[in-house]
Amino acid sequence: MSLPLNPAMAATFAPPVMEARRWLDGVSFPADRPLLNVSQAAPVDPPPDGLRQALAEAALNNPAAHLYGPVLGLPDLRAEVATQWSAAYGGAIAADEVAITQGCNQAFCAALATLAGAGDEVILPTPWYFNHKMWLDQQGMKAVPLPTGERLIPDAGAASQLITPRTRAIVLVSPNNPGGVEYPAETLRAFFDLARAKGIALIVDETYRDFDARSGAPHDLFTDDDWRGTLIQLYSFSKAYRLTGHRVGAIVADRARLAQVEKFQDCVAICPSQLGQIGALWGMRNLSQWVAGERDEILARRAAMSAAFADLPGWRILGCGAYFAYVEQTTGVASPDLAKRLVREAGVLMLPGTMFMPSDDPRAARQMRIAFANVDRQGIAELAQRLASWRA
Amino acid sequence: MSLPLNPAMAATFAPPVMEARRWLDGVSFPADRPLLNVSQAAPVDPPPDGLRQALAEAALNNPAAHLYGPVLGLPDLRAEVATQWSAAYGGAIAADEVAITQGCNQAFCAALATLAGAGDEVILPTPWYFNHKMWLDQQGMKAVPLPTGERLIPDAGAASQLITPRTRAIVLVSPNNPGGVEYPAETLRAFFDLARAKGIALIVDETYRDFDARSGAPHDLFTDDDWRGTLIQLYSFSKAYRLTGHRVGAIVADRARLAQVEKFQDCVAICPSQLGQIGALWGMRNLSQWVAGERDEILARRAAMSAAFADLPGWRILGCGAYFAYVEQTTGVASPDLAKRLVREAGVLMLPGTMFMPSDDPRAARQMRIAFANVDRQGIAELAQRLASWRA
Repeated sequence: MSLPLNPAMAATFAPPVMEARRWLDGVSFPADRPLLNVSQAAPVDPPPDGLRQALAEAALNNPAAHLYGPVLGLPDLRAEVATQWSAAYGGAIAADEVAITQGCNQAFCAALATLAGAGDEVILPTPWYFNHKMWLDQQGMKAVPLPTGERLIPDAGAASQLITPRTRAIVLVSPNNPGGVEYPAETLRAFFDLARAKGIALIVDETYRDFDARSGAPHDLFTDDDWRGTLIQLYSFSKAYRLTGHRVGAIVADRARLAQVEKFQDCVAICPSQLGQIGALWGMRNLSQWVAGERDEILARRAAMSAAFADLPGWRILGCGAYFAYVEQTTGVASPDLAKRLVREAGVLMLPGTMFMPSDDPRAARQMRIAFANVDRQGIAELAQRLASWRA
Repeated sequence: MSLPLNPAMAATFAPPVMEARRWLDGVSFPADRPLLNVSQAAPVDPPPDGLRQALAEAALNNPAAHLYGPVLGLPDLRAEVATQWSAAYGGAIAADEVAITQGCNQAFCAALATLAGAGDEVILPTPWYFNHKMWLDQQGMKAVPLPTGERLIPDAGAASQLITPRTRAIVLVSPNNPGGVEYPAETLRAFFDLARAKGIALIVDETYRDFDARSGAPHDLFTDDDWRGTLIQLYSFSKAYRLTGHRVGAIVADRARLAQVEKFQDCVAICPSQLGQIGALWGMRNLSQWVAGERDEILARRAAMSAAFADLPGWRILGCGAYFAYVEQTTGVASPDLAKRLVREAGVLMLPGTMFMPSDDPRAARQMRIAFANVDRQGIAELAQRLASWRA
C-alpha cells in the first residue's frame, strides 16, 4: 500500500475472533460431528420473545427509535442502571454517573481515551482480553503485563512494582475474560486502594457480572463515596439479554469523567443505537427472573465443564467461571497449531492462549480459552470426549 | 478530578450539538411561535412504513439480527453498496472494498486511525465539520486549516502549500457540511492528483450525496483504477433512509486499508448494529424511488431558502445545498451570542460559525449554519420572517 500507514496500527495484531473464523474456511463438518464453536463469548440464541416484541413494537410505533438521541444515552436507561446498581452494590450512583456506549468494548476505548495518550502506560493482568491489548497498541499506549500465576488472580503488591510516572490505569476484568475466575472482593479492594494511593484509575470491566456464582455484591467499592476519584466501571448488556448484535454497553464514572467521555462518543458514535437501548431498558425492567434462570444454566454448564475436564488426560482447568474456562494442555502441540488442528481433526473451534498473552510468555503455548457458555451440557460432554479421543 | 486526564482530550471542545441543546434548557416556546430547530442535520420523521416493518420483522423472526456479525459488516450490505456504487460512479468497486461502520463519524475515525498517529497532520478546509476537528484534537493530531474563501470551495494549489512531511491526509466533505456547497468534479480531481503526487490520502465524505442537485456522478475518481492508492470514501445511510438512530455508515477503500480498519472496528464496535444494517440494506433495495422524492423535497427547500434569504437585510447566503445553508450575518452581534439570543428572542436554534472555524479566524463571528433540511417550506418562510423582524 502506497498510502501512509499509522505504524502503531500496522503493529497491532488482527482481530483474533475473525482470524479464528477463517480457520473454518473450506472445512466441512460431517452431520454426525458438527462444529463445536467455543471461540467467542456470544449467545447463540436470540433474546426472549417479550424483548423481541418490544423491539418490533418500537420499530413500528416509536418514531424516536429511529432518530438521534443524546450522546451519552437514553436518560431512562441511565436512570435504570443507576437505580439497580445503587441497590446491587450498596452505593449511591446517580443517573448522570452512567453513560451508555455502543457495546462494552467501546466503553473501554472511551474510558481509556479520557485517561491516557500515546506513550502512557496501562497495567493489564495476563492472560489479558485481547481487545484491550489491541486498543492500547493502536493508540500508541504501552500495555504493561501483570502475570497472575497459577490461580489467575492478580496481586496488587506485584502491580505496585510496575507503576511508573507514565502509568495511567490498571484494568481488571471480573469475572475474568479469558480466565473465567471471579476476583475476590479483597482483591478488588486492594487494587482500588493501590490506584487511589497512586493517583491512577482503576477500570473494572464487569461484563460477566450477571453470571457470577457468588451471591450479593462482588465488591464493596461503590459503598465508598471516594469511588468517584478512582473507579471506572464498565458493563455490557450483550450477555444478560442476548443483545450482542445491538451493541449496548455502559460506563459508570464520575460526572467530570463522563463529560470527557462525551467528546469521544460524539466522534465515534454520536449516540448508541436507539433500538438497542430500548431493548436493554426493557430487559432491565422485565427480565430479572429470566436472567436468573440463564445464570443457573451457565452455572450448571460450569459444573459440567469442571466435571468433564477433571479426568481428561492432557488437559487441566486453570480457571472456570462466567463464560470461560482457561485451560492448560500438555498434548505436546503448541496452542496455535493445536487450535487449527482441532478444527479439522475434532470439529472444535477454541482460541489459543497466545491470543491472550504477551508474545514472550512461554506459558501461552500450553494454554487455551474455551467459551463453554455457548454449548449446552451435552455439548460439553461431547467436547471432552472429542478432546479425549484426539491424538497428536 | 484527581484522576489522570488525557491532556489532548481535555483540550478538545465539547460536542457542539449537545451544547446547543442546553441553550434550550428553561426556555419555553409559545404555541404560536414553536421552536424552529435548524441546529442538527437530522431527519425529524421516522423511516417509511416498509422499512419500519422490515426492521420489526427482523426483530421478531431473524435470530441473526440479535447476534454478533462480521466486524466489517454484513456481506450482503457490502455487496449491495459495491454494486450500486460501481454503477453510480462508473468504476469497479468490489464487496470487500466496502466496510460498514456504526455511522459515518465512526467511519472517519477508523479511516484516520489507519493513516495517522499523534503528531501527524491532516488538512481540513474551513469551515470544517466539527467532529473531524474534535477527533484530530483528542487523538493528538494537528488539524491544518485550509481557508476556502468566499465561495467555500477549497483550492488544491493552496492545499499543496500546506503539505509537510507530517501530512497524512486531506479531508473533503461534498456536498459540504457546514458549507452546503457541492464541490465541482474538477476540484475533487485536482485534490486527488495532489494527494496521489504527494503520497497522502484523500478522504472524501459523501454523507449528503443523495441530495446533490446535480445529476450523474459527482466525480470521476472511481473510474481510475488508481483510486485504491489514494482515495478513501465515506458514506452515511442515516440521511437517505432516516436511520440516524441506528448508526450505519460505510468506508470504501483498498482491501489492505480495510484490514487495518478491521482492527479499529474490532475494538470500538465489534460489529455494526445488525438491525441497522438490515434496515440500510432494505432501503438500498427498495427505496430508490422514495429517496428520489426526498431529494426533490430537499431541493425545493433549498430553493425556498435561497429565495427567502435573497432580500433578508443583514443576512447573506455563502453556500446552500444538501442539508445546509452557511450564511453571513451583519446584525452586529457576534455569532455565539446571536445563536443564544435567537433561541430566546426568536424561537430559532442554529449553530454559530465559531463551531466550524479555527478560533483565530475573524470571519467565524459573522457566520452561522442553518440546517434547513429539517424544516418544511413553510418553516423556512417563517424562519426568514422571524430573522427579519428580530432586532439586536
